[in-house]
Parts: sequence; structure tokens; C-alpha cells
Amino acid sequence: MADAGGIAADRLKSFIERIERLEEEKAAIGSDVKEVYAEAKSSGFDTKIMRQIVRLRKMEAHDREEQEQLLDLYKQAIGL
Amino acid sequence: MADAGGIAADRLKSFIERIERLEEEKAAIGSDVKEVYAEAKSSGFDTKIMRQIVRLRKMEAHDREEQEQLLDLYKQAIGL
Amino acid sequence: MADAGGIAADRLKSFIERIERLEEEKAAIGSDVKEVYAEAKSSGFDTKIMRQIVRLRKMEAHDREEQEQLLDLYKQAIGL
Amino acid sequence: MADAGGIAADRLKSFIERIERLEEEKAAIGSDVKEVYAEAKSSGFDTKIMRQIVRLRKMEAHDREEQEQLLDLYKQAIGL
Repeated sequence: MADAGGIAADRLKSFIERIERLEEEKAAIGSDVKEVYAEAKSSGFDTKIMRQIVRLRKMEAHDREEQEQLLDLYKQAIGL
Repeated sequence: MADAGGIAADRLKSFIERIERLEEEKAAIGSDVKEVYAEAKSSGFDTKIMRQIVRLRKMEAHDREEQEQLLDLYKQAIGL
Repeated sequence: MADAGGIAADRLKSFIERIERLEEEKAAIGSDVKEVYAEAKSSGFDTKIMRQIVRLRKMEAHDREEQEQLLDLYKQAIGL
Repeated sequence: MADAGGIAADRLKSFIERIERLEEEKAAIGSDVKEVYAEAKSSGFDTKIMRQIVRLRKMEAHDREEQEQLLDLYKQAIGL
């Protein structure tokens, strides 16, 4: 089915199949991540806080500190 | 509390409160939308298909038709 | 067009139109929220921190404090 | 740093690091997917339609056909 209505069918199919394989791999890793969080939860850790830690660790230390200082300042200003 | 650590506290508070009021209004409308879908569902309509209809009706007729033709062409090419 | 292929067309149309009106209202408020954040930004406020403040203010004080203490504990444990 | 304020620091760190490694792998695959779509686009394919094809191919053939028939019925009923 080299061509269907002006569409290079074989090329389209190969792109779609490559994407599907990658999406499958990505989904498998996604469930691995869920498993680690489940394991941590059953060990007594709070997964919501763990997700914040993962997010904070992605930031540059300098940016993280600046953000935390500004948040404290805003919290004070708002009376939080 | 006009000023807290260089932050115009009153101004910040007024922005935050305006945002909160708007977010509350938005959330109320969001649950109204859910109620309409629930009412439609209990009348026997398929809400997943209704959401597709709402999405399609947002498109310009010309774009919608072009998209549907291309989708049919790709489906044929892929053998779907 | 009371009925089309077993579908109560008028009823479906009225549900769809009600949803569209509500979605329009919701989108309008969404852009009002964006405007307030833009106004705050041009007044020198950090909108990312403002969003955190809005999120924190949605929480019960007791939960907020508990979460902050646990986050500090995890940060210490991880050396953050 | 076996224990920090009652938190098994080493265990927490190992969970966090496992999650970070997996998230990194997942992000790498995510950018591979983007690359394939970019390659397809530069070959003249419509990536928005390709994404619909990928979504449709995930569905069981029976469900897909049923959904398409219902969508056509609703479109007729609404005059779309």
C-alpha cells in the first residue's frame, strides 16, 4: 500500500508505529514511577511531599532559595 | 499592614482576593457544566460524544471539514 | 428536527447550547483572571509566587502547617 | 545521615533518586516522540491528524466503530 490518495502510506505507518513503540515505553516507565511512589507510601513516606521534593530538586539552588524567600515575604504580607 | 518587607501588602492582598473571587465564580460554572452533562447522561445521551460535538462546533466549518477529510485519508492509508 | 435516527435532536441541541454558553462564561472569567495576574505583574509582583499563595490559602491552616513542617523535615533529610 | 527527625533519610533519598532516574528516562523518550513528530511534519504529514490516528489505534475496533457511528448520529441530529 505504497500510496493512498496522495499519502505515502508506508512512511505514515512507519512514523505511527515508531511513535506507538515510544509511547508504550514511556507508559511502562510511568507505571514504574507509580510503583516506586507506592513502595515509598507503604514505607510510611508522604508521596505528596516527595513530589514537591522532586520538583524542588529540579530547580537551581539559587532559584529555589530566591523563590522560598519571596514566598515567605508574600506570606507575611498576606498574613498567612 | 501597608508594607511588609518592601511588599505593598494591601495591593498584593487586593490582587489575591480579586483572583480568589474570580476562581470561585469559575469553579461554580465548572460544576454547572458537570451538572448539565449529568442531566444529559441521565437522559440517555453519551457525554463523551457530546464533548466531541462541543469541540467540533468550536471549529470553523471549513477547518472541520478539512480535518475530517484528512483524517479519513490517513485512516485509509493506515488501514484503520 | 425532533428526532434524527432515534436521537432526540432538540433535547441534544439544548444540552449542547447550555454547555456552550457556560463554557463561554467560564472562558471569559479565565481571561479576567489572566488580566488580574497581568496587572499584578506590571505592578511588580511575581505571579508564580502569587499562584502558590492562592493555592496555599485554599488549604485549611492546620493542613498547610502540617504540610510545611513535613516538607522542611524531608528537605533536611535529603540535604536540600 | 541515617535518620533526620524520625525520617529514614537514606531510604527517602533512595526513593527520590530512583524516581528522578525514571523521570529522566521518561523525559528522554518524550523528546524522542517529539522528534518523530517533527520528522513526520517535515515530511509533509499533519501531526494533529497523526495524534488522532494514534489515539484511535489505541481503541478496540468495536469501540472505535461504535463511537464513530454515534458521533455521526449526533452530528446529524445537531446539523453539523
